[in-house]
Amino acid sequence: MAAQALSERDLAFMLYELFDAESLTKRPRYADHSRETFDAAIETGKTVAVKHFLPIRQQVDTNEPTFDGERVHLLPEIKPAVDAVIEAGLAAPETDFEDGGMQLPLIVTNAVQAHLWAAASTTFGYISLTNANANLIEAHGSPEQVEKWVKPMREGRFMGTMAMTEPGAGSGLADLTTTATREEDGSYRITGNKIFISGGDHELSDNIVHLVLARVKGAPKGVKGISLFIVPKFLVNEDGSNGERNDVALAGLFHKMGGRGHTSTALSFGEKGGAVGYLVGEENRGLMYMFHMMNEARIMVGTGAALTALTGYQYSLDYARERPQGRLLANKDPESAPINIVEHPDVRRMLLTQKAYAEGAYALCLYGSQLADDEKTAETEAERAHAHTLLDFLTPIIKSWPSEYGPQANSLAIQVMGGHGYINEHPVEMFYRDNRLNPIHEGTTGIQSLDLLGRKVPMNKFAGYRAVLAEMQQTIEQARDSELSLFAGDLQAALEELQQTTSAVLGATAEKNPDLVFSNSVSYLEMFGHVVIAWIWLRQGLAADAGLQRNPHAEDEHFYRGKLQAMQYFFRSELPKIYHWSKLVKEIDSTSFDMRPEWF
Amino acid sequence: MAAQALSERDLAFMLYELFDAESLTKRPRYADHSRETFDAAIETGKTVAVKHFLPIRQQVDTNEPTFDGERVHLLPEIKPAVDAVIEAGLAAPETDFEDGGMQLPLIVTNAVQAHLWAAASTTFGYISLTNANANLIEAHGSPEQVEKWVKPMREGRFMGTMAMTEPGAGSGLADLTTTATREEDGSYRITGNKIFISGGDHELSDNIVHLVLARVKGAPKGVKGISLFIVPKFLVNEDGSNGERNDVALAGLFHKMGGRGHTSTALSFGEKGGAVGYLVGEENRGLMYMFHMMNEARIMVGTGAALTALTGYQYSLDYARERPQGRLLANKDPESAPINIVEHPDVRRMLLTQKAYAEGAYALCLYGSQLADDEKTAETEAERAHAHTLLDFLTPIIKSWPSEYGPQANSLAIQVMGGHGYINEHPVEMFYRDNRLNPIHEGTTGIQSLDLLGRKVPMNKFAGYRAVLAEMQQTIEQARDSELSLFAGDLQAALEELQQTTSAVLGATAEKNPDLVFSNSVSYLEMFGHVVIAWIWLRQGLAADAGLQRNPHAEDEHFYRGKLQAMQYFFRSELPKIYHWSKLVKEIDSTSFDMRPEWF
Repeated sequence: MAAQALSERDLAFMLYELFDAESLTKRPRYADHSRETFDAAIETGKTVAVKHFLPIRQQVDTNEPTFDGERVHLLPEIKPAVDAVIEAGLAAPETDFEDGGMQLPLIVTNAVQAHLWAAASTTFGYISLTNANANLIEAHGSPEQVEKWVKPMREGRFMGTMAMTEPGAGSGLADLTTTATREEDGSYRITGNKIFISGGDHELSDNIVHLVLARVKGAPKGVKGISLFIVPKFLVNEDGSNGERNDVALAGLFHKMGGRGHTSTALSFGEKGGAVGYLVGEENRGLMYMFHMMNEARIMVGTGAALTALTGYQYSLDYARERPQGRLLANKDPESAPINIVEHPDVRRMLLTQKAYAEGAYALCLYGSQLADDEKTAETEAERAHAHTLLDFLTPIIKSWPSEYGPQANSLAIQVMGGHGYINEHPVEMFYRDNRLNPIHEGTTGIQSLDLLGRKVPMNKFAGYRAVLAEMQQTIEQARDSELSLFAGDLQAALEELQQTTSAVLGATAEKNPDLVFSNSVSYLEMFGHVVIAWIWLRQGLAADAGLQRNPHAEDEHFYRGKLQAMQYFFRSELPKIYHWSKLVKEIDSTSFDMRPEWF
Repeated sequence: MAAQALSERDLAFMLYELFDAESLTKRPRYADHSRETFDAAIETGKTVAVKHFLPIRQQVDTNEPTFDGERVHLLPEIKPAVDAVIEAGLAAPETDFEDGGMQLPLIVTNAVQAHLWAAASTTFGYISLTNANANLIEAHGSPEQVEKWVKPMREGRFMGTMAMTEPGAGSGLADLTTTATREEDGSYRITGNKIFISGGDHELSDNIVHLVLARVKGAPKGVKGISLFIVPKFLVNEDGSNGERNDVALAGLFHKMGGRGHTSTALSFGEKGGAVGYLVGEENRGLMYMFHMMNEARIMVGTGAALTALTGYQYSLDYARERPQGRLLANKDPESAPINIVEHPDVRRMLLTQKAYAEGAYALCLYGSQLADDEKTAETEAERAHAHTLLDFLTPIIKSWPSEYGPQANSLAIQVMGGHGYINEHPVEMFYRDNRLNPIHEGTTGIQSLDLLGRKVPMNKFAGYRAVLAEMQQTIEQARDSELSLFAGDLQAALEELQQTTSAVLGATAEKNPDLVFSNSVSYLEMFGHVVIAWIWLRQGLAADAGLQRNPHAEDEHFYRGKLQAMQYFFRSELPKIYHWSKLVKEIDSTSFDMRPEWF
């Protein structure tokens, strides 16, 4: 079966009909672009994915990286594939023409890289993390640091990592113990251990730029005493060539359930006296800088989760269309031919669920990219600030919703295919394993939920919260007098429930223990996420409805009807779940809080 | 960390406080037994599990079986471990003393084998499938067949399989094409291909007894033309010794995501002219016989899923108790020591959810074993018939509820452990992979849902349905005047909703297309399953409440409080979900049914 990895029709729908990416060409930065140049870039992304990554997808998974005590060994086919991405200009197509980029909007960049994410799964992480690393240094580093580290990363000669987690601290960054000592020449010596560092060692690039969180001796305890350092694998000479090996050693590789395209490493800094590190910005402000990268990484995680869900959906759909088995209940004639399983209502349910989850999740991620574009290039300062506010607020949802529902979609891809989905003859079991990392890294779902309810909602006098609600309200108004008025009503009711719940839970913080009040924060995140996805689906429904008004040809008509049916599915089978979650949150259900460790 | 695989306190609670297994010793068959003999057998199970299986658990997973074109190679440590089970008499401890068994009740057998399931995960499948195979032949085979095949299986010299699935038919048994031709000597020659045959080849036993579904030439189409055959790997001589190799060839092994302790095979029957097969019972009644084994296998699947969930819960709990990280929100002092993560309310939520799922699921499976005991040894014919009715009705729920919620529990075990849960240093990622098979094999969740709603509910004038409801009602009456009256009220309301939903959906079959009416059958199964588990939890709550009345020592008091808290968790965070499912079912929501293949 030659399944396509993604639906191009759907990608075009989201880009041009849902988010009107073409209108970005009116902005000065994108004036040289047109739908044709956007599509050409997307086509290039697809070509590289199909030629270099799809053929090795299974091998990457079955040939886990190994460490011989000296060097890491990856499947040899990975390097030429990664090089092909870089050579085609797909590693950072959003960067300026003058820096060798394509100067594409971020929403288009997302679509250009979609085929790569879908086909290369986690291997693409080398490239996306490098970008996020370069963006951080560009934003917070000195001009010399940009020249020395960002430039070779943009050119694909260096790669980058984010080194936060430590064996003793995990998500509790306040307790990290890696230390930095200032030397006379202004550099620092870094000593400590980091774990779960993705891409922390390999030979895909000439050098690896680690961004390391560490504590300068004498710094305050907690997160206010954390600084950020550039710590390269190899020191770099004046002329840009590699100097001696820095005091950064690979302590080991982790054997992960999935995501085997991307090494996960334990790194030792300073076993021989101290790794040379260069301070980014000022001391003790490291965590703030790191959030620049982390926010970007969180959106990347959501995008990867959504695309893994989408490609699993596509694969199981193609399978269901070609696999004959069984008959409808209404047909009692054993002499009749078996039907393809896509005809069975329960298989359709599993496909519709995947469609609703995956297309809802990916549309949300593209919306995030659109906001990131507006943040940078919208016409007025007010529009740019508004986009920033929306994106900042939505980040925990963009990170966690696809991460939670992507694996569920992949589980249904397995289920559609039955025993065939459980074996590695087909890639859906790999998608299921790969996607399971996403609710964990870059801040677990629990951490995202506290970020949303405890921080993002009340922040700046509820500015982000109100802004997101206003956006949703606007779509409701638009849908109220359309064919979709029933759905507009459902979303309106959901919005009211969300507001009541928010008031109730935050109101309770005045009088109750915060650990009790926030103990249902994941239910709050679930609720908010479902409302946002329902809103995204209503927007997709409106765009599909508009498409139908244009008397499309048969194939397009089918496509639009499918969108409307998936929207209906989400509204009937998913959105009502929020009332259950809201009850727990509103009533400050204390079951988890009251449970004592000794009772387990 | 030396985590125990299962909680012995909980096992004792379920056996003796919840299901009063000790009372079985009053029945003549178990008169030689006592709680002491039961506990000794359980202790033996644990000893073998700890000594032989826990140490090789990870190796079994990372050393997948291989096939060199001639022979299957398993990890060598598997055979001595399996032999240890057989030598300790743990393979079929329920069989008669005179056949070398321990003549234990099935509910005790389940507990005896629990440690083995939890530690040996899927390796234990060789033994349990052999048992189910032997039980089928014992029930439906001739005395000669019992002597020739069952005896060596009981002794552990032979093992057994169930060979149903074919490449072209999958779950659609009506279309299976394996053929059988009758020979003059009364035996048959079998020709065809089977896939996904668990334990279909290995060298753990002297011989392998395949139970093969095939179609005798000229038989009717569909399921009414299927017969059942014993097809051994080696023919057996008059004296019981192995004769020549039968015409059964291993065509290949499947590479499964999990469950690697148990080979999954493609088998070719009759490549050299026809495999010798022996008819079980009469021609064309094969599927009915196979259901004897399949029903047993379905309960086994549920049990395995529940125990994999339980052991994952236990593992993540032990981890959470020992892993310091972060502080409570109420504590703003970075100088204070980090707390163990079990103190964080969201971690408690994830542990409570696992506890509610896993202990609920396993208690249901033990209840199934209790019914199987009653079916055989209850005092009166009426009691035995009643137990049969209940068990037959509940089988799709016992199969599917643990299979659906077990993997969700295992996902939470990963989440509790964060990045450490995603790597193979700890077994929870393996549990997650292993458990994912359970919603697929022995009838997918979709098939179970149609069996429940389309067959089991209306069967015999709703006899099973009414019987199960009456059992639940009885518990409600018992709880109504207790401390647990609020929960009794919730369950009463749920029962009424279930009845209304059942009437509405079955009423609709009179006028609507059955494929539409049954298109929400999985939601019906979800609903019924949740009501049954809530009932099982109310029973656990009553038993815990009774325990508290006895003024227990501190450790027991904690245990009972934990049970009550998990019950409360299930009633507040899970049971209310049924109202969402019931709405879809009652209203015959047509979203999935209406979705057309070309719209995807």
